[in-house]
Amino acid sequence: MADSTALPLVLLAEQFAKLPGIGMKTAQRLAYHVMSMTDEETQAFADALINAHSTIKECAVCCNLTDSEKCPVCGDIRRDGSTVCVVETPKDVSAFERTGEYKGVYHVLHGLISPLDGVGPEMIRIKQLLDRLKDGSVQEVIMATNPTVEGEATAMYISKLLKPMGIKVTRLAFGIPVGGTLEFADEVTLFRALENRNEI
Amino acid sequence: MADSTALPLVLLAEQFAKLPGIGMKTAQRLAYHVMSMTDEETQAFADALINAHSTIKECAVCCNLTDSEKCPVCGDIRRDGSTVCVVETPKDVSAFERTGEYKGVYHVLHGLISPLDGVGPEMIRIKQLLDRLKDGSVQEVIMATNPTVEGEATAMYISKLLKPMGIKVTRLAFGIPVGGTLEFADEVTLFRALENRNEI
Repeated sequence: MADSTALPLVLLAEQFAKLPGIGMKTAQRLAYHVMSMTDEETQAFADALINAHSTIKECAVCCNLTDSEKCPVCGDIRRDGSTVCVVETPKDVSAFERTGEYKGVYHVLHGLISPLDGVGPEMIRIKQLLDRLKDGSVQEVIMATNPTVEGEATAMYISKLLKPMGIKVTRLAFGIPVGGTLEFADEVTLFRALENRNEI
Repeated sequence: MADSTALPLVLLAEQFAKLPGIGMKTAQRLAYHVMSMTDEETQAFADALINAHSTIKECAVCCNLTDSEKCPVCGDIRRDGSTVCVVETPKDVSAFERTGEYKGVYHVLHGLISPLDGVGPEMIRIKQLLDRLKDGSVQEVIMATNPTVEGEATAMYISKLLKPMGIKVTRLAFGIPVGGTLEFADEVTLFRALENRNEI
């Protein structure tokens, strides 16, 4: 902002600009918006920030973010604890839960192995996954990382660790998205769809 | 967010979603980002919110947002107080200040007259502008509202109030933007550029 802008407003805009996907122009617009909020609204925003950050921690079982000892999924006795779906982020858990079809439990890695970004296997929640599988109650682990280089590499790395433990390791199916058309599918997706074709 | 998401995280996402231009998906992404921030960073963000909201008020002279009694522009004795540039928002002041060419002062209306949105002349800072012009030291008022229906209407309304006071009222020039080409200029802009042609 120019010199004519008051310092507290500049500082607030800088805080907004630190958030992902928010540039300096948008940050300024958001800071100006805060000026038009009431005292109560501003306080509620600040409280929500502090409250979320201080009360949210990782679930003792699956490492998903939760405000209690166990997340709602791990705490639900109706869920099938013998199937574990391994995902990269808590957002992925939300995505699967929205389908309403998955009855197993999750394990959140909080990242993917990425040597180029300096992220090694010890920096994501792989150790916690192995600890969890030790008691032998888990029969299947579904690798549900994204179909990116890092996602595939992480899925392969974990599956190699789990195979000797006698646990069935599966990978999400990749293919033509439902509602999509062949015309607009990229080559890799089309190849995957062909490779994983099913008998009808 | 789905049921699997912890409540404080949902509440934080809802706060982000109240900001202009931020939908629920982006709000969730921002809320998750806060989880990856340090305690100090989160506290700094909350403090910046509260601090900006509680210390920023309107300049006693020009109604621009400031953290002191007078904004930096009104407090600068080198600025020419006889020329007042009337703008809609504090952002517009920043835009003019960035040009570094304007040496006069400003008046921020904090809105435009818009009967359709229920905004009447008494709801924006027109009264403060008139009070300010009473002592006769201002010679020119530049109407720098946007070239929208509301911007034009507000400029006309104010100019009609000021004309009887013997103050020169001018309007920003509208025309082809510098670096633009005739081909891509819309009809109204082109008409304005033609109408306001200058002798060379």
